[in-house]
Amino acid sequence: MIVNITLPDKTSYDITIDRLNEIYYDTKVVIVTNPTVSGFHLEYLKQKITAKQLSVVTIPDGEEYKNMQTIDSILNHCFEHRLDRKSLLIAFGGGVIGDMTGFASSIYQRGISFVQIPTTLLSQVDASVGGKTGINNKYGKNLIGAFHQPKAVLIDPFFLTTLPKREFSAGVAEIIKMAVTFNENFFTWLEQNDLTQEENIKIAIQKSVQTKADVVIKDEKENGIRAALNYGHTFAHVIENETEYKTYLHGEAVGIGMIMANELSVKLGLMKENEALRIKKLLQKYDIPTSYKIKDVENFYEHFFLDKKSLDNKIKFILPNSIGGCVITDEVKKEDVIEVLKVFN
Amino acid sequence: MIVNITLPDKTSYDITIDRLNEIYYDTKVVIVTNPTVSGFHLEYLKQKITAKQLSVVTIPDGEEYKNMQTIDSILNHCFEHRLDRKSLLIAFGGGVIGDMTGFASSIYQRGISFVQIPTTLLSQVDASVGGKTGINNKYGKNLIGAFHQPKAVLIDPFFLTTLPKREFSAGVAEIIKMAVTFNENFFTWLEQNDLTQEENIKIAIQKSVQTKADVVIKDEKENGIRAALNYGHTFAHVIENETEYKTYLHGEAVGIGMIMANELSVKLGLMKENEALRIKKLLQKYDIPTSYKIKDVENFYEHFFLDKKSLDNKIKFILPNSIGGCVITDEVKKEDVIEVLKVFN
Repeated sequence: MIVNITLPDKTSYDITIDRLNEIYYDTKVVIVTNPTVSGFHLEYLKQKITAKQLSVVTIPDGEEYKNMQTIDSILNHCFEHRLDRKSLLIAFGGGVIGDMTGFASSIYQRGISFVQIPTTLLSQVDASVGGKTGINNKYGKNLIGAFHQPKAVLIDPFFLTTLPKREFSAGVAEIIKMAVTFNENFFTWLEQNDLTQEENIKIAIQKSVQTKADVVIKDEKENGIRAALNYGHTFAHVIENETEYKTYLHGEAVGIGMIMANELSVKLGLMKENEALRIKKLLQKYDIPTSYKIKDVENFYEHFFLDKKSLDNKIKFILPNSIGGCVITDEVKKEDVIEVLKVFN
Repeated sequence: MIVNITLPDKTSYDITIDRLNEIYYDTKVVIVTNPTVSGFHLEYLKQKITAKQLSVVTIPDGEEYKNMQTIDSILNHCFEHRLDRKSLLIAFGGGVIGDMTGFASSIYQRGISFVQIPTTLLSQVDASVGGKTGINNKYGKNLIGAFHQPKAVLIDPFFLTTLPKREFSAGVAEIIKMAVTFNENFFTWLEQNDLTQEENIKIAIQKSVQTKADVVIKDEKENGIRAALNYGHTFAHVIENETEYKTYLHGEAVGIGMIMANELSVKLGLMKENEALRIKKLLQKYDIPTSYKIKDVENFYEHFFLDKKSLDNKIKFILPNSIGGCVITDEVKKEDVIEVLKVFN
């Protein structure tokens, strides 16, 4: 199945969700990947691709290498292989590979094309739409980068067969997030179907990608409704920060964050308790963590203000008002938030 | 006077050619400049600007500092001053400052606005239109960068009063280039008027900027007619390379390059000899060099192929077919080029 994305500026690309087809490129192509993905799947990918010149650059795995030095090593590979303005990079890996390959391609000779072949469930449903590319530095995450849209996104569920179970579940958390905030029917479908079946995960990816695309197209530069994609994230960022990014995968922290947002939403009378319960049950079905012990409630609250998105010292909460809808608000009283945090104390 | 630029993707900005007005910004602003420009004009500029927060980052002067390390120092300044996505960079200097400030602003938090205040004649007529930003690396010039349009360009002829005479003339060479390739009336006007008068240089800048803008808008990504802006450059790049960028300013090398292109054009029967003579006379009026001694004609010819624009091993020549028009061709026979080069032997 194919989801076509056409942005307001008329750039357009297809997201194909299927086993990889054979692809012929009349240009030089560089595959950017990491040792893990390469070990499992590089030969499979290389068998599918024919290009004028095909080479591979392998970069170290992990968020700590998402920096300018790694970008330089990708660019140097491109210069050494004399890529021209018609050449192409392929991002073959998870979100980190996608962000860096996208950024490198956006600045190589003032911008060349890139194709995303995401291999984790999280990057398949999340990072393949939005055009955000970037790297971290000592001041924070994703602070240097560009908006650069891929030429195509190829999502092959086969890559998920080698994905650790925890990483699969973390991806499912983002799928559930999308259903809760935007699409009640999709949520009901998720309750009734098993995502470990290939046919089902393909449908879930397609629906998530389509939902995110609709939102991103409406709000490309992130001023309004796109904020709703951050449901669960306000809390998740603090949890990740408190646990130094070591205890939870991002999707797991988002799972806990959704539970906390729901609690706040129920407290404010926005959402019914049984709706919050349905979400919790669905998360638990995939062993996504739903509990967290906050050591110091005041301290947790203060951490909200360190987020780069909390301009003007206000905290933006994304609160479901049902399954399939949400409100974006920065007017929640501190005492209400504190009371909810105490539930996790 | 104001030249409005509206690009095909609807982004739009004004180029204002006049003494600087007072400017009020409701955001944080960083001025990027070098010690020379700062010494002469920073106080003048600071008196004109009011901002939520105004700071200055001074980077070293010269092409050899146009690298990622200098970009990092600009970005670090921005992070330390906590610039957000609404903040603004001001490029205050010549082409190198413009290219680097533009690039830094294109990747800071995935892109913030920048304003160009070019202080050399060359950057006023040339670098302020086109949206090209970038840096050099060991593989060549401008190989890493982005297309990023300024929010506004402010051209104040007052800055030219401290410009060395040679640099002024090098800028005039680019103005003459524009007239020869695109606008006969402008060329005649240039023959009749003295550009060292402020009122005249303003008119010449306006006409050059307008001409370049018309060309760039027709051909934003540089596939067709925009190549005509490279009149004189095919030869100039070889001259600069042979003299290791030490003997001539870029505009001076372009002056010699135009003379060489004209010679070839006359030889091929495209241009009349008296037209070539008028161009030579106009260049000489501003002491722009028009002669060059080629040591080894075969070697000079081979150098054409090192240019990054000579794809497919063909040399692209921009040859005037009159004053105010030109042809772009990659089908000139080697023996014709060699014979012309021998004139400079």
